[in-house]
Amino acid sequence: MNIICLDLEGVLVPEIWISFAEKTGLEELKITTRDEPDYDKLMKYRIGILRRENLSLADIQDVISRIRPLDGAVEFLEALRAMTQVVILSDTFREFASPLMRQLGWPTILCNSLVMDDMGMIESVKMRQNDGKRKAIEGFRSMGLRTFAAGDSYNDISMIRTADAGCLFRAPENILKEQPDLRLARDYDEFLAVIREFVESDI
Amino acid sequence: MNIICLDLEGVLVPEIWISFAEKTGLEELKITTRDEPDYDKLMKYRIGILRRENLSLADIQDVISRIRPLDGAVEFLEALRAMTQVVILSDTFREFASPLMRQLGWPTILCNSLVMDDMGMIESVKMRQNDGKRKAIEGFRSMGLRTFAAGDSYNDISMIRTADAGCLFRAPENILKEQPDLRLARDYDEFLAVIREFVESDI
Repeated sequence: MNIICLDLEGVLVPEIWISFAEKTGLEELKITTRDEPDYDKLMKYRIGILRRENLSLADIQDVISRIRPLDGAVEFLEALRAMTQVVILSDTFREFASPLMRQLGWPTILCNSLVMDDMGMIESVKMRQNDGKRKAIEGFRSMGLRTFAAGDSYNDISMIRTADAGCLFRAPENILKEQPDLRLARDYDEFLAVIREFVESDI
Repeated sequence: MNIICLDLEGVLVPEIWISFAEKTGLEELKITTRDEPDYDKLMKYRIGILRRENLSLADIQDVISRIRPLDGAVEFLEALRAMTQVVILSDTFREFASPLMRQLGWPTILCNSLVMDDMGMIESVKMRQNDGKRKAIEGFRSMGLRTFAAGDSYNDISMIRTADAGCLFRAPENILKEQPDLRLARDYDEFLAVIREFVESDI
């Protein structure tokens, strides 16, 4: 039995923080881990801006609910779920992912979560565990599952390398250059074909 | 972050073999593990009947697609997936579950699989692992997830006991008698309330 583990942002939906910055006009929120490598510092900076703008979680979810999955993502995921088992492994927060998961038909997602205050404002973040994507693959392998992993970013490489098989999806040039032996799927048709090949090789 | 692990048959859908026997009129298929404790022997017996009746997997799936989820199960599962993460842990076969999963909106399911011959007839069964429900809970715990498990049968007890919390759902008298300390949910409203209490206790 197989399980396909997919990254979320860049694979099924746009980058959430960047889309959120565009929808709200808060340009300061376009800073990502590429600009600020200290994730803890970056999240404190982001939460500070949200509080300054008096944006509660409900407001943020309202904006996120207007972000749409990538073109073709809904149909791709539907075809994939009819073929095999799928879990989304993401570093985002369940509260942010929720409006997008609704649009994707509530696939199972393992990610992080937010700590809220009594006013519905974000106080801090709660990481599920360190290196959670890789550990999830190890967990699924311990359940007797064949694992396939795919993503587009630096934080996806260890899960792809740990899985029985995997590929990159629409990864940027720098990742492709550094990981020349990983297969690349450029669109959903190709992506589905690579995964089908993996599923059908299960004997 | 939480994950809710649900048994399938008796919890979301009827017992598949019994419903299948009723739909096809093949009374001999009503024998279950209560009558024949040797699972391997029971499956060989069932597969023998399917072959004798010349029922291919496609025929079987066609019959199963006419089995409906239990009354209220679709709405229960939809509400649950909007609240938290859900995975179905079952001892059935993915090929049998598939027409039912479609009706339930493709939740993630971990179960067993069938080995087919070239004619599309079932040849044998392939178990994912021994004691797979319990090991799945252990796997999810290793991913840093809080786990809740629920079911109605003997094969659900070890997963319920291994999880951080759990309950029985519409379990028969003998199970209730043997597991007097386990909570019991009698309908989906009560079931959802017990799970909500668990999810909200996550601090």
